[in-house]
Amino acid sequence: MSTVHREATGLRVALSAVRSAPIADDSALDEVYARALLGSVAEPGDGLLGRAIDAIGAIGAAEHLLDSASPVGFADALTRAGGAIDAREAEGGLARWSPRLDQAAFARALEQAARVGARLLLPSDPAWPVGVDELGIHAPLGLWVRGREHALDGSSASISLVGARAATGYGEHVTMEASAGLVDRGFTIVSGGAYGIDGMAHRSALASDGTTVAFLAGGVDRFYPMGHETLLARIVATGAVVSELPCGAAPTKWRFLQRNRLIAAASEGTVVLEAGFRSGSLNTAGHAAALGRPLGAVPGPVTSPASAGCHRLLREYDAVCVTDAEQMAELVGGARRRAPSDGRTSDPASDDRGTFGMSTSPDAVRVLDALSTRSPRELADVARRCGMSPSAAMGVLGGLEAVGGAKRHPLGWLRVGRG
Amino acid sequence: MSTVHREATGLRVALSAVRSAPIADDSALDEVYARALLGSVAEPGDGLLGRAIDAIGAIGAAEHLLDSASPVGFADALTRAGGAIDAREAEGGLARWSPRLDQAAFARALEQAARVGARLLLPSDPAWPVGVDELGIHAPLGLWVRGREHALDGSSASISLVGARAATGYGEHVTMEASAGLVDRGFTIVSGGAYGIDGMAHRSALASDGTTVAFLAGGVDRFYPMGHETLLARIVATGAVVSELPCGAAPTKWRFLQRNRLIAAASEGTVVLEAGFRSGSLNTAGHAAALGRPLGAVPGPVTSPASAGCHRLLREYDAVCVTDAEQMAELVGGARRRAPSDGRTSDPASDDRGTFGMSTSPDAVRVLDALSTRSPRELADVARRCGMSPSAAMGVLGGLEAVGGAKRHPLGWLRVGRG
Repeated sequence: MSTVHREATGLRVALSAVRSAPIADDSALDEVYARALLGSVAEPGDGLLGRAIDAIGAIGAAEHLLDSASPVGFADALTRAGGAIDAREAEGGLARWSPRLDQAAFARALEQAARVGARLLLPSDPAWPVGVDELGIHAPLGLWVRGREHALDGSSASISLVGARAATGYGEHVTMEASAGLVDRGFTIVSGGAYGIDGMAHRSALASDGTTVAFLAGGVDRFYPMGHETLLARIVATGAVVSELPCGAAPTKWRFLQRNRLIAAASEGTVVLEAGFRSGSLNTAGHAAALGRPLGAVPGPVTSPASAGCHRLLREYDAVCVTDAEQMAELVGGARRRAPSDGRTSDPASDDRGTFGMSTSPDAVRVLDALSTRSPRELADVARRCGMSPSAAMGVLGGLEAVGGAKRHPLGWLRVGRG
Repeated sequence: MSTVHREATGLRVALSAVRSAPIADDSALDEVYARALLGSVAEPGDGLLGRAIDAIGAIGAAEHLLDSASPVGFADALTRAGGAIDAREAEGGLARWSPRLDQAAFARALEQAARVGARLLLPSDPAWPVGVDELGIHAPLGLWVRGREHALDGSSASISLVGARAATGYGEHVTMEASAGLVDRGFTIVSGGAYGIDGMAHRSALASDGTTVAFLAGGVDRFYPMGHETLLARIVATGAVVSELPCGAAPTKWRFLQRNRLIAAASEGTVVLEAGFRSGSLNTAGHAAALGRPLGAVPGPVTSPASAGCHRLLREYDAVCVTDAEQMAELVGGARRRAPSDGRTSDPASDDRGTFGMSTSPDAVRVLDALSTRSPRELADVARRCGMSPSAAMGVLGGLEAVGGAKRHPLGWLRVGRG
């Protein structure tokens, strides 16, 4: 990789400073350089660049860009490598990447990354969140990480808890409980670092001594939103703050939308806890659904516009209704451990009036209807009252006696318990 | 029908009094008598009786009962008619019906029905709610109606609004709005006359001058619950109070569960508005689902146990999340009329930040990100900022200009509107 390498030589120190492990050889250095450089000229999720890298590798793509290759030459190289990219597309790519090529600015971004302790994680690294690879040609070229790379490596189950910035007390309360409960079940909490639901998800995870990861839409050197500077710094201490954009990159609307795909892709499932009808968190949900990842939504009062987006997900996008951490854990299948019994198991002999499943048999319901707790009734009377034959009623009475629902009396049968 | 007819003769006046139209002939009289009598000895939903009636008709079944037929003879008659009922089953049926045969009590029930103005509606009547026939062998033999039979005849779309007795202010509020909104859309509101959600569904329908129908678990001569005596009397005045049980029959747990099947079967769809985890209204929902009828559930705060049953329906029974009357109407497909625009339609030129569907194209989002509303930017600058080639950016700018999202300026391009 003559050109890239030549250009990169001067950056060896800067590039080494942003890698967590020593750079083994020049080829490895080239790869780091190529991916960092391409990530500084292309917008997140640039599918043409993804296809080019699939065909000729990041180093190859960077060489063409640095050589100011002709679109025809670039297209030829791609075609020879099996990438179905025509000259017109190649021209479009070079035309949008070239104007941003600025080696001085790139070097400053690397220095800034080193200054704030950000490291560039690459797809070949052990800590790389393999889930993002499912984004295919839209996968990130690399991830800038501040904090513990380990938080991303998939060694723990992970779940995204996202929602509106304009959260209500209800949404924040539910998020707090959910995040803490998921941490208790061993989950890493992934979110977007925003105000409202995102912030509460991170905060509650930290309060429970859990691991949490924030994906930002701009460079990790500038914490956004500013009001979350302290929170994001705390996340760095025990978890990770991550972005695919280089230091210095400002968050834009496009980058927020693309950041959402990383939240969805880097976690095993996504739950929207509170979201207005047009909340950006629905975009994250859409990415999760598109990736085939489990998608949950927490319902809320239908009178609350802040839950309208969640209800929309339940109605239109087949999201699973989740109401607590247990159900969220179940959603992603990551928690085999069940929480202690929540008292919902039914006692077969109890009078569970009107249950859906009717764990008490229909006949038992009818015989119980016909019994009194105080006045013993003879078999014939019980049978007539419940509209069953005496022998059928006797069979049911025997069963009820066995489970303690009815008892014999010198004058007939009595019901035991309520009613 | 010698026996039945002979026995029935003395009841001609009483039976005529509970029919809405004159009884045409002795055969019609026999049918009325047979169904009323069988309905007084069998519990609701007695499948064996349903099969017997399918095979030999209500008159035939009543004859066997009145003749104190031997089980073998009864079984023979059923088998000859093609009903696959063996002697043991026949014996069981006769054994549970015979002890309840009481002509004097039957006559008193008819007199009571006439006294309160209840009429017996039969499957052959024009006003019969044909939906209940889908219950097959568990269909009611007849329906005792107080009020306007017309309310049942299917001439209007119908929907069941059901829920817990222990309703909250939230549940009652949502039910009130839903019922009124559905009345506005021409729906008849079906429910169970109970306290809580049911009562509010009826009350709101009446307040909106709508038609509402209450199905009771006991005879229509005694309004249950007593606290709803006035409400049920008001329903009789403009709608209908209905039961398959004869006058004098007490509501039992079994009859409540069977009554629920009628609510589900007599309406085009069922919506549960608020229900605890074990609410009886989930039983109604189960019947609706079993019948393949649309089933909706209104979500509520996950912190409210009063909504836990609704969330269970959304999670476990694939109920549709419905949040207002419009969505409930849509659920049963009965309302082709849409309510006036709710302001959710998107303006393609507006900055609909973070919408799920991204009605603004991805490229437009990026170009808008790159524009300022105050400082005009040249094409090359815009292209570099948004990471697109100048020609691609120009194409998008042209489109944005056309819809009013961007405008030309002597010094470049400006964004129009927010941001």
